[in-house]
Amino acid sequence: MRESTLLLQIAQASAAGFLGRPDVLVGPGDDCAVIAAPGGSTLLLTTDQFIEGVHYARGRSTESIAASAIARSISDIAAMGGAPLYALATAALTKDTHQQHATDLFEAMAACAQGWNCPLIGGDIAITDGQTILTVTAIGAPHATRGPVLRNGAKPGDRVYVTGPLGAALASNWTRTPEPRLDTARRLCEALGDNLHAMIDISDGLGRDAGRIAERSGIAIALEADSIPLAKGIASWREAIAAGEDYELCFTSSTAPPDELGCIAVGIVVEGEGCRAITPDGESFDAHESGWDHRA
Amino acid sequence: MRESTLLLQIAQASAAGFLGRPDVLVGPGDDCAVIAAPGGSTLLLTTDQFIEGVHYARGRSTESIAASAIARSISDIAAMGGAPLYALATAALTKDTHQQHATDLFEAMAACAQGWNCPLIGGDIAITDGQTILTVTAIGAPHATRGPVLRNGAKPGDRVYVTGPLGAALASNWTRTPEPRLDTARRLCEALGDNLHAMIDISDGLGRDAGRIAERSGIAIALEADSIPLAKGIASWREAIAAGEDYELCFTSSTAPPDELGCIAVGIVVEGEGCRAITPDGESFDAHESGWDHRA
Repeated sequence: MRESTLLLQIAQASAAGFLGRPDVLVGPGDDCAVIAAPGGSTLLLTTDQFIEGVHYARGRSTESIAASAIARSISDIAAMGGAPLYALATAALTKDTHQQHATDLFEAMAACAQGWNCPLIGGDIAITDGQTILTVTAIGAPHATRGPVLRNGAKPGDRVYVTGPLGAALASNWTRTPEPRLDTARRLCEALGDNLHAMIDISDGLGRDAGRIAERSGIAIALEADSIPLAKGIASWREAIAAGEDYELCFTSSTAPPDELGCIAVGIVVEGEGCRAITPDGESFDAHESGWDHRA
Repeated sequence: MRESTLLLQIAQASAAGFLGRPDVLVGPGDDCAVIAAPGGSTLLLTTDQFIEGVHYARGRSTESIAASAIARSISDIAAMGGAPLYALATAALTKDTHQQHATDLFEAMAACAQGWNCPLIGGDIAITDGQTILTVTAIGAPHATRGPVLRNGAKPGDRVYVTGPLGAALASNWTRTPEPRLDTARRLCEALGDNLHAMIDISDGLGRDAGRIAERSGIAIALEADSIPLAKGIASWREAIAAGEDYELCFTSSTAPPDELGCIAVGIVVEGEGCRAITPDGESFDAHESGWDHRA
């Protein structure tokens, strides 16, 4: 069972619910859903799980677990070019959890969320036999003038960029706390406006996530293998484009981003389908399948 | 470790995040958070977990699990007198889950949510070693004229009501799918307006949940033991007020609800603190501690 296949099926299962609901501007299948809520607010909504033994190893510090759980959902808001507003968090904790640990965990999540200007406004807690599972829902607002940046707007002729070196999470053996690129995303919205065509956060590796832009936009992406910026400790572009949990952003644009944002051009958008990595000597590899997809 | 203690601590941990955020109208500690979102919408937000082995037994049908997971969060919207708008759902599924089961589960959740006019607009799925955990976040709108009905508005002199017989979930051995009282809640808001002082959904038993109204309102509640309406198969008021997962509503009001809503008066609000059940011969029992609180 592959999670990506299931997520696609979820999206299809949900689509029937939107008939006659023009207030659902974007449903499942992007980084966030986008709604035009009664009363006038346009909002971004996302929910994500952070699971012991799947997304992190047992023994990691409470602060680091809390920070990562919050950052995953905040990063989905960044991927739309938005600003986070509110968070809700649940925890399923094991029976051997000490009360102090549970309190510390929620205090740490509340502090992290607050650090993103996104107060924790609700939650739930339960005791289970299994591993620790944290679920964070984030609500945000799209950029006031650019609006939400979706995955489906890439156009042939765009350049493909990333916001920083890739593989830092892998190089840290997934102990590094991701830093959602909220500020960069906002500045990209302001500088590029409607020329910022598509954006996604790199949670499953550039190959897979750029492939998602390609699939949703109905175009192809060619990554230039020797342009991929490698995080310290990463030896090859192959490692870099397959590495998940980085939470850098990948975007396509018809104009270049301002130099001071430090974005790196890594490829181009062309007609066709799929995402391939091209080496300097002309070899071509399927990059879409190189990323991280949890399997049962 | 008691969940109620932890939930209180979560609320306290989160409160610091609201300083300087007047848009957070109600934080953790009620059935829903209430926000005044940028753009003009006032919204209700709630998140809840539904866990195999904690909230339901392994072997229950997919449709029933899906319906209960969705209903729990929808009921929190009902408890505020609101109308549901959108839902997000995550599932942590065990490695032995067949892909068809996962798809069926999300299709069933999407259909149930749609049945409450609350389309499923996003989600996440993961494979774990532990038991199945479903987490549902619901977003709703408060009643247009009454506004959100909180737990903290009960006043001495109010009567305490419930919307139906208690203990039906217990009598069914927790196989019954709860039916959130959205319609009754809306009609109570319309009929009683500002005289509808406080409301909660009965998820942990009337004793405990009425006790929450008492605590948040700074008053005491006296339940009349022989007025407690018993669901079919429930032998005593003691069983009825301790039975969780019913999702009837408990509310306090200074005027009587319309007869056609079928609400039952079960007690009164007085000065003091706590929630007690009084028998016809004058015996008094602590009802607050009689409900369902999962312990490690």
